Amino acid sequence: MSGAEGPTPVVVLVGPQLAENIGAAARAMLNCGLDRLRLVRPRHGWPDPDAVPAAAGAGAVLDRAEVFADTAAAIADATRVYATTARLRDMIKPTVTPREAAREMRRLAAAGERVALLFGPERTGLDNDDVVRASRIVHVPLNPRFSSLNLAQAVLVLAYEWRLAGEAEVPRRRDPKSWERGATGDELANFFDHLEEELEAGGFFEVPAKKPAMQRAIRNVFSRAELTEQEVRTLHGVVTALVGRPRRRREDS
Amino acid sequence: MSGAEGPTPVVVLVGPQLAENIGAAARAMLNCGLDRLRLVRPRHGWPDPDAVPAAAGAGAVLDRAEVFADTAAAIADATRVYATTARLRDMIKPTVTPREAAREMRRLAAAGERVALLFGPERTGLDNDDVVRASRIVHVPLNPRFSSLNLAQAVLVLAYEWRLAGEAEVPRRRDPKSWERGATGDELANFFDHLEEELEAGGFFEVPAKKPAMQRAIRNVFSRAELTEQEVRTLHGVVTALVGRPRRRREDS
Repeated sequence: MSGAEGPTPVVVLVGPQLAENIGAAARAMLNCGLDRLRLVRPRHGWPDPDAVPAAAGAGAVLDRAEVFADTAAAIADATRVYATTARLRDMIKPTVTPREAAREMRRLAAAGERVALLFGPERTGLDNDDVVRASRIVHVPLNPRFSSLNLAQAVLVLAYEWRLAGEAEVPRRRDPKSWERGATGDELANFFDHLEEELEAGGFFEVPAKKPAMQRAIRNVFSRAELTEQEVRTLHGVVTALVGRPRRRREDS
Repeated sequence: MSGAEGPTPVVVLVGPQLAENIGAAARAMLNCGLDRLRLVRPRHGWPDPDAVPAAAGAGAVLDRAEVFADTAAAIADATRVYATTARLRDMIKPTVTPREAAREMRRLAAAGERVALLFGPERTGLDNDDVVRASRIVHVPLNPRFSSLNLAQAVLVLAYEWRLAGEAEVPRRRDPKSWERGATGDELANFFDHLEEELEAGGFFEVPAKKPAMQRAIRNVFSRAELTEQEVRTLHGVVTALVGRPRRRREDS
């Protein structure tokens, strides 16, 4: 892809179990002009020679694959994250089809945003903590009685739609000003850390068993808002102002 | 598929070499609501237990697969034949994309035509004698430098387009439960009042001239998130926890 069209989406496979699926995913990606692959804790380690035959000539994609210890690290530089899932989650978040996602991703890439596409492990799919990091859920509208796609097939559907969406699209690239670019995964994670640390101190998570669900609910609100880098800084300021007020008073007294 | 929509297309795999590709093709078909599979001279005979794992639950498609000695027999009852190929042939025949083919096939099926989709062997693709039997060539518009799709991936692309061509609208929202309903303007305004009052007290708006712009920036984050009523209540709790922490401490001391 030329620079004029912006960066191509990164494909992130979270916890892939079978090396041949990684290879087949790499092949499907390259079929559609995508070549940036990231792996989060591949079950059998990496590099894995068993991935090579299924890649069938897309070995360069495997060679350049990057490995990460967790999803947060894999999307740390992404400014927009899409989570693919077969199940419709009990989570309030915009859900789009692969075709809608592809059109959006083309526009985002043309505007210089860094897009990541998340795929979960073969058996279980993405867990809720990973889905919640995304601003959108991508749901492939399949046979409701048999909707579980093979991992590489899911990658293909997204990559194929990405490719086709580019045939019509007129690229109109504009460098986003730094303050209006989307916040990266890392910046968002830092904000969650800040907020949750203060909430913890404030006794918000008083029932430990409920903490994960409450965390997810709150993170979901902010990830859905597709925050800019500037907005994340503003929100840090909001949290600091809220907790700082009585501290100042205490100093006064 | 209901009878009103006509017969679904038959997928014909000519000379498939790998049983796992047959299984994966069956899975992709059923994912998209297709279940009529025909095999022409599968290399390792039929039935083949090696096809079962890749079918991953679509075993019924394999069980009902029919085997033929040649392509002519496999498409004997078909009234329209589409030949898929990665190479653009030196053959005068209308060439369509999978998306165009899918729309045509839907119209044909609705009119009672019996449609067959031909796929060639993994290594070589369909030979010209088979392509010539078709009324249309289907060409998947992929990366011209790496256009060879895995067999099951090619089946998926056609089956996926077939499925989407039949879906005017994808149901993607459940009926919201009461706590999932969108927050009203009133509820949102109450939250803004709460938040901004506490921010004011925390010295967040210390430059009065900047206050309106800062308010707008913060409100914009939350209004863009399309909050539910439950989420607004959670956010009230977040603000209260953040400002309440030192209050509790003060009471303790």
